[in-house]
Amino acid sequence: MSLLHYNEKEIRERLIFFPEWKYQDGKLYRCYEFRHFREALAFMVECGIEAERLNHHPEWKNVYKQVEVWLVTHDSAGVTDLDFQLAEAMDSAYHKYKR
Amino acid sequence: MSLLHYNEKEIRERLIFFPEWKYQDGKLYRCYEFRHFREALAFMVECGIEAERLNHHPEWKNVYKQVEVWLVTHDSAGVTDLDFQLAEAMDSAYHKYKR
Amino acid sequence: MSLLHYNEKEIRERLIFFPEWKYQDGKLYRCYEFRHFREALAFMVECGIEAERLNHHPEWKNVYKQVEVWLVTHDSAGVTDLDFQLAEAMDSAYHKYKR
Amino acid sequence: MSLLHYNEKEIRERLIFFPEWKYQDGKLYRCYEFRHFREALAFMVECGIEAERLNHHPEWKNVYKQVEVWLVTHDSAGVTDLDFQLAEAMDSAYHKYKR
Repeated sequence: MSLLHYNEKEIRERLIFFPEWKYQDGKLYRCYEFRHFREALAFMVECGIEAERLNHHPEWKNVYKQVEVWLVTHDSAGVTDLDFQLAEAMDSAYHKYKR
Repeated sequence: MSLLHYNEKEIRERLIFFPEWKYQDGKLYRCYEFRHFREALAFMVECGIEAERLNHHPEWKNVYKQVEVWLVTHDSAGVTDLDFQLAEAMDSAYHKYKR
Repeated sequence: MSLLHYNEKEIRERLIFFPEWKYQDGKLYRCYEFRHFREALAFMVECGIEAERLNHHPEWKNVYKQVEVWLVTHDSAGVTDLDFQLAEAMDSAYHKYKR
Repeated sequence: MSLLHYNEKEIRERLIFFPEWKYQDGKLYRCYEFRHFREALAFMVECGIEAERLNHHPEWKNVYKQVEVWLVTHDSAGVTDLDFQLAEAMDSAYHKYKR
């Protein structure tokens, strides 16, 4: 059983509460910046643990101090509540890294 | 001071010893597969520690059980010995994950 | 609601299937050895993700290439099925590190 | 070649700048507290990367949201500058986790 995905209007309404995220190419996208590579990797570990608990995993790319994230629910062929839950968990983990 | 980068012929000769790697778009590329997301993340931690020690970091993207890696030395605008060192360290870390 | 814990006889019977583990001071105990510090830390990340999913966490101590683990279910004041589940998950993760 | 270790008086003088650390049983000791298990593990990854770069590793024990650390330079049979360097790096990494 898969979650119903949101339509574009619903996604854009929810993104009001996620000002750092964009909706592009059918996915939620955010880029996080850190002071060090080791912070970027620690962030991925913290969020990876939460992703496993949610059983919902990000697509993410790390280059040095930067982590780019794309969220989509493949089973639902779109953006669902799970993506917003993971976005919220990641933003919450990131909060302490903000300069 | 930056390392001299290899030319394409030299890169292709070295890649004989790295059969799982390709040279494309000016970078070394390999895709690693794991049994679980948690193995993929553990691999990134193990290799990330080595990357920091070498002071040379990969571009890498994780999607669930998969880790794609691109290696290039930005300071040298090309592929250098550091990239082959990191490729070797990553292959060595990956060895135990092979099924 | 907490799980019922096993009595010592039951624990010793189950430990037949976990030959590397000991029962001491009311906890399950095992010491894991690795080739490198970075392997020890990667192992902790892999097992930590699983521990969070089980919502059951180890007591563990890392010194360089070594990880010592003590398992007990504090809510049940003894060793329960959760401890054996986590022991099994850790042994399974460790399998690939064995020399 | 090993570093000269400090005597107890020197250690206690330096600890003025590390108010959260104690000198006990011949080692520097501190206990860190986190909001979540996943933060504790992320902290260990961040500090582990730095430890590997310094080629000096902590003794540390994690129980759920807590990480206890003991620092000593085994080659020098005492507390050396490396231990204070690692203590400083760990405190610096921890700063953002403070509530």
